[in-house]
Amino acid sequence: MTKVFVNIGLSLDGYMAPEGMTMENWERPDYRNWGVKWGALMGWALNLQYFRENLKLGPGGETGPVNDMARHTTDRIGANIMGKRMFEEGEHNWPENAPFHVPVFVLTQEKRQAWPRPGGTTFHFVNESLAQLLARARDVAGDKDVRIAGGGNVILQYLNAGLVDELHIALTPVLLGQGLRLLDGIDSNKISLQIDKTVHSPVVTHLNYTVSKR
Amino acid sequence: MTKVFVNIGLSLDGYMAPEGMTMENWERPDYRNWGVKWGALMGWALNLQYFRENLKLGPGGETGPVNDMARHTTDRIGANIMGKRMFEEGEHNWPENAPFHVPVFVLTQEKRQAWPRPGGTTFHFVNESLAQLLARARDVAGDKDVRIAGGGNVILQYLNAGLVDELHIALTPVLLGQGLRLLDGIDSNKISLQIDKTVHSPVVTHLNYTVSKR
Repeated sequence: MTKVFVNIGLSLDGYMAPEGMTMENWERPDYRNWGVKWGALMGWALNLQYFRENLKLGPGGETGPVNDMARHTTDRIGANIMGKRMFEEGEHNWPENAPFHVPVFVLTQEKRQAWPRPGGTTFHFVNESLAQLLARARDVAGDKDVRIAGGGNVILQYLNAGLVDELHIALTPVLLGQGLRLLDGIDSNKISLQIDKTVHSPVVTHLNYTVSKR
Repeated sequence: MTKVFVNIGLSLDGYMAPEGMTMENWERPDYRNWGVKWGALMGWALNLQYFRENLKLGPGGETGPVNDMARHTTDRIGANIMGKRMFEEGEHNWPENAPFHVPVFVLTQEKRQAWPRPGGTTFHFVNESLAQLLARARDVAGDKDVRIAGGGNVILQYLNAGLVDELHIALTPVLLGQGLRLLDGIDSNKISLQIDKTVHSPVVTHLNYTVSKR
């Protein structure tokens, strides 16, 4: 049965992204040093053999359990859901061949024709309730799973609505001090978490939780 | 060589203790529901065979890698350092046979004679710099290690002074929403963390980090 999951990177102090990493500062990674901080948070992924292959960064890279998990996580995605702001930031930065390779539903009030990209990613722009949009994504995903891709606001809405089955956190031992802190927005009266499994490497700890509606 | 370590329990959203869990509310665990929340945060420990034995809670309890780790962690402690407030809260709550069984140095301006308890715990009341007090604890610990026991303020002072070698976090999948958030106070310009190892069970994930001065 189709599962709905979220996978995010978090610093040890709970931040999804460093302060200053916004569209207006995209060309200025030295602004509040966000580029270096983002690298510290997500460098583990860019070093994986699988991501290097997928993003065409060249041969080599780390193999092993974390790499296998990253490949498995991507393979299971049949459809993505994302917020308008994540899409807008990505629109300028993703290559022609956008890195999803499956349908992506963008939650937005903007009316816009579907936008197919080379490589199998098609962006659909939809103004529906969370549940309606999820039903649509499930249909498209078939035997595969649905990922709530981001940003933080959309992830929180889906979590607090009790519509997410799994939360995967890639916890890196960095301290960002400021930024967007995801877990603060979770309403613990609405959902609870149970440990599913943990996969670790010398640079990152993957914490996989199942999510239950209270 | 003697290592200096900190071991704390954290909720997934980064809290060391629930809001309302203070001395004035000690007899009122229903105040802001702190009793239930504390149980959710630390229940994993009270279920371990080793803690049940040590705290005389009766036979039985969980065995396995987390239990082995808990026993090893206690066995390695040759001396503890704690803040005045943690001591004051504990003074009323620890049994006659206080659960340390080694010397405990309490950082305080109060002048007070050493206070030996049955079972090997002796509290020493000291008004010195962090480094001086640590040197004293190292001397007493001999071949064993020094634990900075708490509370949060003393732990942060030792971490940010670059005087801690290891930070152990017992991460439970609970969300407290409010309370004392330890990691916010760490100055990432002063120290950095590297993953040492991870030990996990179905209810708690132990994240052990080595700490380096920048």
